[in-house]
Amino acid sequence: MEQGKTIRAALLGAGTVGGGVYKLANLLKEDIFQKTGARLEIDKVLVRDRSKKREGIPSEILTDRWEEIRDDDGIEIVIELMGGIHPALDYIQEALHCGKQVVTANKDLLAQYGAQLFEAAQERHCDLHFEASVAGAIPIIRPLRQSLAAAELTEVMGIVNGTTNYILTKMSEEGMGYGEALKLATRLGYAESDPTADVEGYDAGRKLAIMASIAFNSRVTFPQVYTEGITKITAEDIRYAKEFGYVVKLIGMTRLTDEGIEVKVHPMLIPDQHPLASVRDSFNAVFVHGKACDDAMFMGRGAGEMPTASAVMGDVIDCMRNLLHGSCGKIGCGCYLNLPVKPIEETVSRFFLRIQVTDRPGALANIAGILGNNGVSIEQVVQKKSHNGVAELVIITDNVRERYFNDALRILEGMSVIQEISGYIRVYG
Amino acid sequence: MEQGKTIRAALLGAGTVGGGVYKLANLLKEDIFQKTGARLEIDKVLVRDRSKKREGIPSEILTDRWEEIRDDDGIEIVIELMGGIHPALDYIQEALHCGKQVVTANKDLLAQYGAQLFEAAQERHCDLHFEASVAGAIPIIRPLRQSLAAAELTEVMGIVNGTTNYILTKMSEEGMGYGEALKLATRLGYAESDPTADVEGYDAGRKLAIMASIAFNSRVTFPQVYTEGITKITAEDIRYAKEFGYVVKLIGMTRLTDEGIEVKVHPMLIPDQHPLASVRDSFNAVFVHGKACDDAMFMGRGAGEMPTASAVMGDVIDCMRNLLHGSCGKIGCGCYLNLPVKPIEETVSRFFLRIQVTDRPGALANIAGILGNNGVSIEQVVQKKSHNGVAELVIITDNVRERYFNDALRILEGMSVIQEISGYIRVYG
Repeated sequence: MEQGKTIRAALLGAGTVGGGVYKLANLLKEDIFQKTGARLEIDKVLVRDRSKKREGIPSEILTDRWEEIRDDDGIEIVIELMGGIHPALDYIQEALHCGKQVVTANKDLLAQYGAQLFEAAQERHCDLHFEASVAGAIPIIRPLRQSLAAAELTEVMGIVNGTTNYILTKMSEEGMGYGEALKLATRLGYAESDPTADVEGYDAGRKLAIMASIAFNSRVTFPQVYTEGITKITAEDIRYAKEFGYVVKLIGMTRLTDEGIEVKVHPMLIPDQHPLASVRDSFNAVFVHGKACDDAMFMGRGAGEMPTASAVMGDVIDCMRNLLHGSCGKIGCGCYLNLPVKPIEETVSRFFLRIQVTDRPGALANIAGILGNNGVSIEQVVQKKSHNGVAELVIITDNVRERYFNDALRILEGMSVIQEISGYIRVYG
Repeated sequence: MEQGKTIRAALLGAGTVGGGVYKLANLLKEDIFQKTGARLEIDKVLVRDRSKKREGIPSEILTDRWEEIRDDDGIEIVIELMGGIHPALDYIQEALHCGKQVVTANKDLLAQYGAQLFEAAQERHCDLHFEASVAGAIPIIRPLRQSLAAAELTEVMGIVNGTTNYILTKMSEEGMGYGEALKLATRLGYAESDPTADVEGYDAGRKLAIMASIAFNSRVTFPQVYTEGITKITAEDIRYAKEFGYVVKLIGMTRLTDEGIEVKVHPMLIPDQHPLASVRDSFNAVFVHGKACDDAMFMGRGAGEMPTASAVMGDVIDCMRNLLHGSCGKIGCGCYLNLPVKPIEETVSRFFLRIQVTDRPGALANIAGILGNNGVSIEQVVQKKSHNGVAELVIITDNVRERYFNDALRILEGMSVIQEISGYIRVYG
């Protein structure tokens, strides 16, 4: 190993995480040298507006010209933290074409263009690291790709969006409504001004696409992921779920089945004894099951300046080791299979179903009959006290193919005895 | 990368985990080829007794002569699963001297001879992988060495012994006594016929030495780890802990302080909201805190044939990738610091203390006075109803240097009003 070498890197983006990475790289200067045998120098930072002051980053290393980084052969590592598809996609592809190693936290990009990016990386034997793209500081990408490479994974499920987990925690523990909890999350900076990507499950969906691709060695892209958000969850749903011994979480889940890969994000009732049930506030967690490794769970900070920066820097240190050993690009795409993704209608779930019914004799029998005729069997049912002649039914079904459940729902909707289908949520197990 | 190459490996030991590794290597033949570009062939297995039949391993690849493996230059990876110090230490050192890559699950060896083994590995630029040595199937060594390399770790604590966690779970949830729970654990195969290493905390202590060395870049060996087992924990301790909102766990803990590294294994009261509190039965979990990464936790199976085998095979796949890319030995020892280990008396803890006192006026004041004079301040105290003139005091102290606590205890022991000091257990926080 060449001693005392300096490895030069450039940062694309100087936002929260970019600032954290710059800070950490300086703070850990000596440690990085001791760990790798080389010094790291981040000496170019790409920003849109050079005149804007960036806390902690000297203005003379700021540039607004990508070419300055791309064409500098001395820059060996590009750390992309701009987010979004354009222009990050072009920049990363160009960096890889130039033989630079790439570290990114960009889940949008990986979830949509993972295959293309890995192809570009492989062509020049470059590293493409993306630990921070899923679940922030929690080591999950490297464990999936290396430590669990022989675990025969069959299921990965997780809470991978901190905003929605914070909202659901507030609704569950303090009885807030969805709107109130969202407002609080926004005020505290957990939710963005446009919270769509979080509350509709798109953010989690992108992370699931990335994890499914690695876990099952078959490329899954974001458009293949079924997503359903938390906007329709009510305080009543959560209260009833609690009565049955469950908590409501936004769960991203991917499973390997004989008919293909299931990959989906939706609210879910989780038994309160399950390790994911105790993951509160803005924490993230990923639960995996493999035929060989059995159950395992990883929990931690899914976002935030320094947690995310620490994941990025872990990747950068790995890149440095690979550069010094001439072993970049050692772990490629890994998607050597081409498995189908199952349509959501063909997946099997249990359901929690809440219905307002005209309180008259035979109503429950009618409803149970229709469910039964459609292959939906009832595991538990509670009829709540009637109010103004309307009774509330809360049902938990056995496992049923979603198509059949939807058929039953459509028929129920047409029944005169049913005032309202107040909601249904999938149930774990 | 050379396509279609075959990499030959040898297994030392054909016990439970060895058998699992052999099984998994065959089961994943195609997957390993796709992931690495090479085929893995385990074609020698070292055993003490060649005549004993081994389920699933063809008898013609068994050998009782280490030299046959050592001197076979075509064997590039040695997978050591014999356990114990001798002869495993010699075999691994010889294998490394011969330039073979080594994967081991041997915590005894790593915790005592880690420095020497890494020196041998470095000399020939060999891989020395040991993911399975700590917490079985849970990826923890690789995350600590790579993903969390920039996390500025300050604390690692965990439940890293499944046997004792099983025993404590039974005591806590089913009210069993220690003896009864141990008997059950033995009957179910969770505890060995001689359970000393588990119940006295030695097994956990070895794992802590390994984790501390990596987390803080400074070699810690097993004899430096303070260990205290669970044999004195009673059903009463657990019941009172519960009243205060705690569960009792055997915790291994290492912390980076200004005065050096704290590293210790002992029973501990954990707040029932803490993620470690919900780690039940034989599950293991490791909780880490870093200035950059904040809190993170890893949970899973700490032992068992296939879980441990999956961790070993993850390492083997990594070795294969390194062999094919000529990058073996990329991550060395990493212990570039030489930090002192703090004596247990100089560490700071909160304590749960249970005392039987003659029930007479002023007794509590006396005891509180002695504690106070020794710098032990009381956070909570409960006096239980007196029985035959003896009252039970349950005290939780504030943080105190252990030396002062011990001084106070010695004085209390000499007090005529005190019938018995029934026990004391450290408290988290």
